Amino acid sequence: MVKIAIDAMGGDFGPAPIMEGLVAALKQNKNFTAIAVGKKDVLLPLIPRIYDNRIEILDTEDVISMHDSATDALKRKESTIYKAIELVKNGEAQAVVSAGHSGASMSLATLRIGRIKGVSRPAIATLMPTSENQNTLVLDVGANVDCDAKNLFEFAIMGQVYAQVVLELDEPIVGLLSNGEEESKGNEATKEAYELISKAQLPNFAGNVEGSDIFKGTVDVVVCDGFIGNILLKTAEGVADTIGKILKKNLKRSLISIAGAVLMRKVFRNLKVRVDYAEYGGAPLLGVKSPVIIAHGKSNPKAIKNAIFQAIGAATSSLDEDIEHRLHKYTQK
Amino acid sequence: MVKIAIDAMGGDFGPAPIMEGLVAALKQNKNFTAIAVGKKDVLLPLIPRIYDNRIEILDTEDVISMHDSATDALKRKESTIYKAIELVKNGEAQAVVSAGHSGASMSLATLRIGRIKGVSRPAIATLMPTSENQNTLVLDVGANVDCDAKNLFEFAIMGQVYAQVVLELDEPIVGLLSNGEEESKGNEATKEAYELISKAQLPNFAGNVEGSDIFKGTVDVVVCDGFIGNILLKTAEGVADTIGKILKKNLKRSLISIAGAVLMRKVFRNLKVRVDYAEYGGAPLLGVKSPVIIAHGKSNPKAIKNAIFQAIGAATSSLDEDIEHRLHKYTQK
Repeated sequence: MVKIAIDAMGGDFGPAPIMEGLVAALKQNKNFTAIAVGKKDVLLPLIPRIYDNRIEILDTEDVISMHDSATDALKRKESTIYKAIELVKNGEAQAVVSAGHSGASMSLATLRIGRIKGVSRPAIATLMPTSENQNTLVLDVGANVDCDAKNLFEFAIMGQVYAQVVLELDEPIVGLLSNGEEESKGNEATKEAYELISKAQLPNFAGNVEGSDIFKGTVDVVVCDGFIGNILLKTAEGVADTIGKILKKNLKRSLISIAGAVLMRKVFRNLKVRVDYAEYGGAPLLGVKSPVIIAHGKSNPKAIKNAIFQAIGAATSSLDEDIEHRLHKYTQK
Repeated sequence: MVKIAIDAMGGDFGPAPIMEGLVAALKQNKNFTAIAVGKKDVLLPLIPRIYDNRIEILDTEDVISMHDSATDALKRKESTIYKAIELVKNGEAQAVVSAGHSGASMSLATLRIGRIKGVSRPAIATLMPTSENQNTLVLDVGANVDCDAKNLFEFAIMGQVYAQVVLELDEPIVGLLSNGEEESKGNEATKEAYELISKAQLPNFAGNVEGSDIFKGTVDVVVCDGFIGNILLKTAEGVADTIGKILKKNLKRSLISIAGAVLMRKVFRNLKVRVDYAEYGGAPLLGVKSPVIIAHGKSNPKAIKNAIFQAIGAATSSLDEDIEHRLHKYTQK
């Protein structure tokens, strides 16, 4: 039975939504147990007695806040995120979920759990919605701001393995984010990465793709550096938010019939489900030796539940071995 | 009276929408004349006789197509875009509008008309919609894929001058696109550009902004390199398109009442107006000695009309002198 470590205190809204998400996950999936890391007298009242035998609490007080620097995290060995990561490092848990300081989670995971052999830099992957009934995995979305071609090459492999092994796609197609589809397009790092991937004969490489392809679902995995990935993510959120606001403004102006308003509410709810990160859970940090899921600071219980399911999915898969094996195979050529 | 040169053949849909846009512009604004560059026997039938005294035709057959390489454009001296640019270079027209091969337009403008003193690289600027009643000017959106800090610094100045002189904003605020608002965020080029702009004491510099800020209207001008700008633009288009598709699918499923459908059509029309590039016209190429407006290949007559108005606005302003003066002033320090 897999055991998941959870930083129970790190989120923006404190331990309540995190513990509620954990309880929901335990209810829905009987095949895992959890270690909640946080203040015992705060966490204990949040756990229904029937789950006492499936949740351990590791009593810890210190919490790295959003205002702390990621470098401090290494020194604060009594913090919830440090302890949660140590549980995985020591083999007491198989994966970790944190809605806390994402920079701290990344640094600690990279330095304490360590990188998979062959990985230069771990990358954060996230799922983006498309107009079809599928999602696109985008990486890196923020771990590495300056990437060279080799980093992008490794991201392509790690993303493809994750899509195959955890998302269970048959032959995931990977594309390189660029300013045009032609091979000649790209900035220096992208052009060089194109060459590396082509030369290595990575299967199902679709070449360059454009920003709009992410939401069309043209490919399963899109690779970019973390600077662009972050901008991309926030641009997408910004556009969705703006369209929502414009629609609402116009609706207020023109809605006379109650029927129309009721219909629209339904449509918005459906739309929300499709673009809501809570549906996917969190973002896996790919390239470290054990699964680390970085959840949004503002995660609601549903997001935490889904992040835990992602962690279980990754921990019970051959993700880490496959990344190592695949990197070795394609770097050999 | 200002004279505008128009590549009348370069667009994806041939000369009809371009000439229709030109005629609409002539009708609405009595203070300009035009030289349409293209095949005389094709263009002449598209011009109502009452405009004969305000449209000249420069008879030219060759058209650079989307499949031609931009470097070929320099050799094809009989092409519509080459001739249109030469008209500006020789002072026979004060600005040029082209819906043709944008790479060709850029190279020809840069090499034949020439850069403004102090400009390392011209940049393409475009307006993005926000949820408020204003737009954000973003540059560079595709002219330069690899930019250093100095390029970004110059883009900040050129964008601010355009916002002030052509868009007539009082004290336009400029932001640097980054992966977070803090000064410490950014890739190498962005961090260095932040320092350059701060040291030069450029007025109304808001520091780093994020992808979502573009659509919030936090600042008036957003600066990024052309690789990111292109990805950003296409991501925004992709998200808008995807949301539209999801909404339509859901509406089809749930709309029973005709009232609701009618209301929604209104809302969509309003939304379209807000995100439709045709409302703004084209994208100015900033940093060349005379105004060059690059219109979308798929421009409809309205987009061409608005692109012509942009060209007139720029040609009758002090844009070029002000860019030179401002670059000199802030590079001096």
